[in-house]
Amino acid sequence: MADDLSGEDRLIARYFQPIATHPGALGLSDDAAFIKPPPGCDLVLKTDAIIGGVHFFPVDAADDVARKALRVNLSDLAAKGAKPLGFLLSLALPKETGDDWLGRFAEGLRDDAERFGCPLFGGDTDRTPGPITISIAMFGSVPEGTMVRRAGAKPGDRVFVSGSIGDAALGLALRKKTDMGAAWQLGDAEREHLRSRYLLPQPRNALAEAVRGHASAAMDVSDGLAGDFAKLCRASRVAAEIEVARVPLSDSAKAVLAAEPAMLETALTGGDDFEIVCTVPAGNAGSFRAAAKAADVAVSEIGEIKAGEGVRFVDSNGRALAFKRASFSHF
Amino acid sequence: MADDLSGEDRLIARYFQPIATHPGALGLSDDAAFIKPPPGCDLVLKTDAIIGGVHFFPVDAADDVARKALRVNLSDLAAKGAKPLGFLLSLALPKETGDDWLGRFAEGLRDDAERFGCPLFGGDTDRTPGPITISIAMFGSVPEGTMVRRAGAKPGDRVFVSGSIGDAALGLALRKKTDMGAAWQLGDAEREHLRSRYLLPQPRNALAEAVRGHASAAMDVSDGLAGDFAKLCRASRVAAEIEVARVPLSDSAKAVLAAEPAMLETALTGGDDFEIVCTVPAGNAGSFRAAAKAADVAVSEIGEIKAGEGVRFVDSNGRALAFKRASFSHF
Repeated sequence: MADDLSGEDRLIARYFQPIATHPGALGLSDDAAFIKPPPGCDLVLKTDAIIGGVHFFPVDAADDVARKALRVNLSDLAAKGAKPLGFLLSLALPKETGDDWLGRFAEGLRDDAERFGCPLFGGDTDRTPGPITISIAMFGSVPEGTMVRRAGAKPGDRVFVSGSIGDAALGLALRKKTDMGAAWQLGDAEREHLRSRYLLPQPRNALAEAVRGHASAAMDVSDGLAGDFAKLCRASRVAAEIEVARVPLSDSAKAVLAAEPAMLETALTGGDDFEIVCTVPAGNAGSFRAAAKAADVAVSEIGEIKAGEGVRFVDSNGRALAFKRASFSHF
Repeated sequence: MADDLSGEDRLIARYFQPIATHPGALGLSDDAAFIKPPPGCDLVLKTDAIIGGVHFFPVDAADDVARKALRVNLSDLAAKGAKPLGFLLSLALPKETGDDWLGRFAEGLRDDAERFGCPLFGGDTDRTPGPITISIAMFGSVPEGTMVRRAGAKPGDRVFVSGSIGDAALGLALRKKTDMGAAWQLGDAEREHLRSRYLLPQPRNALAEAVRGHASAAMDVSDGLAGDFAKLCRASRVAAEIEVARVPLSDSAKAVLAAEPAMLETALTGGDDFEIVCTVPAGNAGSFRAAAKAADVAVSEIGEIKAGEGVRFVDSNGRALAFKRASFSHF
């Protein structure tokens, strides 16, 4: 009997075991892992995949790709008020993917697993004739019954959004047409800011506890603020008015919009923000601001929930904007 | 604001909501799901993907593909003694995949979700320039601390395997070279048996409780009995002797081996069996047999655990077989 490790076993031992730090992962030496959720807690479950040529550029550094794969899932946990516990990784690799790529990929994965407190519990690696495909299933915990939902917003609630909106969509536009940087008269730092916001999401997990403690509804902004927030309002069966002038923009995004005002639509509908949009009862707004400040995450109040249905984005003249397409969809 | 559902939302509402029957799935209307594991239980976690052209044939019926995607994961839960709770689905589809395929896929998924008691908790759908890629993350439960592991086999333990071994590997050989059926002088029913065992795994979830109650170690046989059982023995730091004549074979497999004895190696190392191999302390063997019988799953005793290392497959003359490759590996 051959007692040799297979290639797959070697790959796991070399690259992935160091990230499997939870005892229930059994050092990836078994067929499955186990975990006991914290007492009195629900488990929160999420899966999201990223695909080469679709969600990232094939030339992106492997460690950034790994981080992105984790972070798009971490962002959802943050918006649901959940604390990360760990993740499962399903990795499909073309045969030309070598050890260099895998080594850097594992490095990025390990760094973020440590940073966000979400060790690897198990995985699956396959060859594919298609592009690199990374599917993460992430699980976190919330005290029983406290997962923050899309449904729950009430008329009068204030609408908050974290960080800044539109950077990633503008960064993607810049990567697709690099000459836009010149047309927009951006400096190097501005270009780099936008590009990096597309390349590497900054999920707001530091805000999760504040969201859980104060928000009536929340979701992460991944497919565009306009479309995602419309989903939240539909789920809550409410309407909303958003003041476009209050939507937080980075200096880089402001520079783009100064040069080409029509890019506002891209900023509000383009997606890949991985910020949190949430609704907070008016009486909680002050303490939510304070909690966000304590967590060192910028939040901006951008509008108010109304009775009825539909979300209006109004400009400083009180006119409602019309978007060609409110959010990104693959289908 | 456009209040239209996106294409992705429609797809989810039409095909996948009916499978999301657990209240914590929130009808797939939120960004994440939640679940409270049964009191006193650990959650068991597993992910496995299947890819068109790699793990299934592009011409396979979509409902069979869906079942296979679920069952390769269910098989792991069974071997770990876990009861299925639910799953997350990450689906990457080429643009030519139409509603017909999706409808049948969802049908197969729903049937098996019901049959095995594992509703859909959430998912992610993407377009891919590559082949259909289906990644499942499945979770189950076991009473705290009782997940059956690869490590745990002790010298003197009896080795059992469920069902029959080799059918799927022979069925795959038959699909790759259909003229083998004639060479092997197989009847239609025999060919169909082998093909269907490759197409559609029959995971032994009915045996999970018996395994949990009696086995010292267990794993599912997915990459070939020889290689997988060698992994179990390595993890348990034991040796084993398997009597090849006692390895359970279907009548179809016996017919193939009668025509071409060299196919024995394919049967023992080819994989896709999705049976359970487990070790049972000698004193438990009788009650394990009885529990398996009560669960209506055939089990066969095929050998014994020894001190030392290495697994010997011995023929009826006591000679050890040598395999070119003990198990399937993608890498």
